[in-house]
Amino acid sequence: MTAEIVTAAMLIIGDEILSGRTKDRNIGHLADIMAAIGIDLKEVRIVSDDENDIASAVNALRARYTYVFTTGGIGPTHDDITADSISKAFGVACEYDPKAYRMLEQNYMNRDLEFTEARKRMARMPVGADHIDNPVSLAPGFRIGNVHVMAGVPAIFQAMLDNVVPTLKTGTKLLSATVECPFGEGVIGGPLGEIQKAHPDTIIGSYPKYLDGNFWTELVARARTQDALDAAVAEITAMVASLKATA
Amino acid sequence: MTAEIVTAAMLIIGDEILSGRTKDRNIGHLADIMAAIGIDLKEVRIVSDDENDIASAVNALRARYTYVFTTGGIGPTHDDITADSISKAFGVACEYDPKAYRMLEQNYMNRDLEFTEARKRMARMPVGADHIDNPVSLAPGFRIGNVHVMAGVPAIFQAMLDNVVPTLKTGTKLLSATVECPFGEGVIGGPLGEIQKAHPDTIIGSYPKYLDGNFWTELVARARTQDALDAAVAEITAMVASLKATA
Repeated sequence: MTAEIVTAAMLIIGDEILSGRTKDRNIGHLADIMAAIGIDLKEVRIVSDDENDIASAVNALRARYTYVFTTGGIGPTHDDITADSISKAFGVACEYDPKAYRMLEQNYMNRDLEFTEARKRMARMPVGADHIDNPVSLAPGFRIGNVHVMAGVPAIFQAMLDNVVPTLKTGTKLLSATVECPFGEGVIGGPLGEIQKAHPDTIIGSYPKYLDGNFWTELVARARTQDALDAAVAEITAMVASLKATA
Repeated sequence: MTAEIVTAAMLIIGDEILSGRTKDRNIGHLADIMAAIGIDLKEVRIVSDDENDIASAVNALRARYTYVFTTGGIGPTHDDITADSISKAFGVACEYDPKAYRMLEQNYMNRDLEFTEARKRMARMPVGADHIDNPVSLAPGFRIGNVHVMAGVPAIFQAMLDNVVPTLKTGTKLLSATVECPFGEGVIGGPLGEIQKAHPDTIIGSYPKYLDGNFWTELVARARTQDALDAAVAEITAMVASLKATA
């Protein structure tokens, strides 16, 4: 069986993250979902609300990865420039999408609210984009090419992503297993490196933890088959047992 | 008075963030510190443990921003490849730094611990780099050119950053003020955009909040002089008051 690799990148658009005002809560969520469905998240970028910066980041990422997921900047205010920036990246016009316009117009009419110019902005998207449904607050995200454009508010981002996930091609999942190790990296670094060399198709990571003046490590193996994972974990477990016996 | 602009980018090196295993806690900290000292954090990238990806990200970022801060990948295990990758980016050799080597050697000797090959790895850095002291666990980070290379473990990253901050050139701080607004973006989008147009040197952001089925917003003005900030905040406050009066 040949493992199928599907990759993704995330682009977070927002001065508020870079200024420290808002602490990101979307990276971890996307990373968890991607790992669960078998897509390798390979890169994340956070850029400010600048049309050129957004467009060039989108173009760099969409050329390199299977999928790009963006968050932020699709609301109705002047600093919401994602639709324009993505249109620029794809070289297409940014216009009112007729279906989105009618849906929003009808919604505000039903609620006896004015369909303001600001609200109309939420119907703008690159010509040719498909909608990503927004069950929380109606105004849709959109997909154009391999780029999925979603909201930055975590509750809306998560709901939009739930709608996107079933449409994605997925690859062979990276299975993972963790071995807790009571030794620091200086002790295990040598033997763990040998195990990595013996298992080139398995990704072995060492994550140092520091608590109350002591170092310990979480050793994580990731592989695309259960057999490969089990083989690496057996060697890591044996290494930890051997170190305990001689400690 | 001309505002002095100093910029920075952050590069996070680590598969563990991209896989979702570890949730990042360093972006928010760096963003807060940069805002506090008057450096504009303009971009963040997270890349995997791949030498070419790290080197090309470092080169892209160091050419564009005043400072680059990296976290992760400077420990003693096989997956700690940051020193090699940064050396590659700068086109210099990665070697044992004599001062770091002696310091670590002495430390392990004093603690009656073997100075293993893995531990020796922590003394490797690009030729010509300066140390960044590590008061938590001794093994230093390093600075080469405008790139500051620090640990990913939050307690160590924070301690290293504390040592770096006094060495940085800082710019005119972005002062900020927040106006809480009980209206959603669809209501305020139009008038807020007009205020932004009238205050081109002030960055006005609208951050939608969604709670229990209701939208409200935090309106944040950021400027490099108190006068500019006060003028924008006065207009935003008047706008909110006017909307309340007619609601």
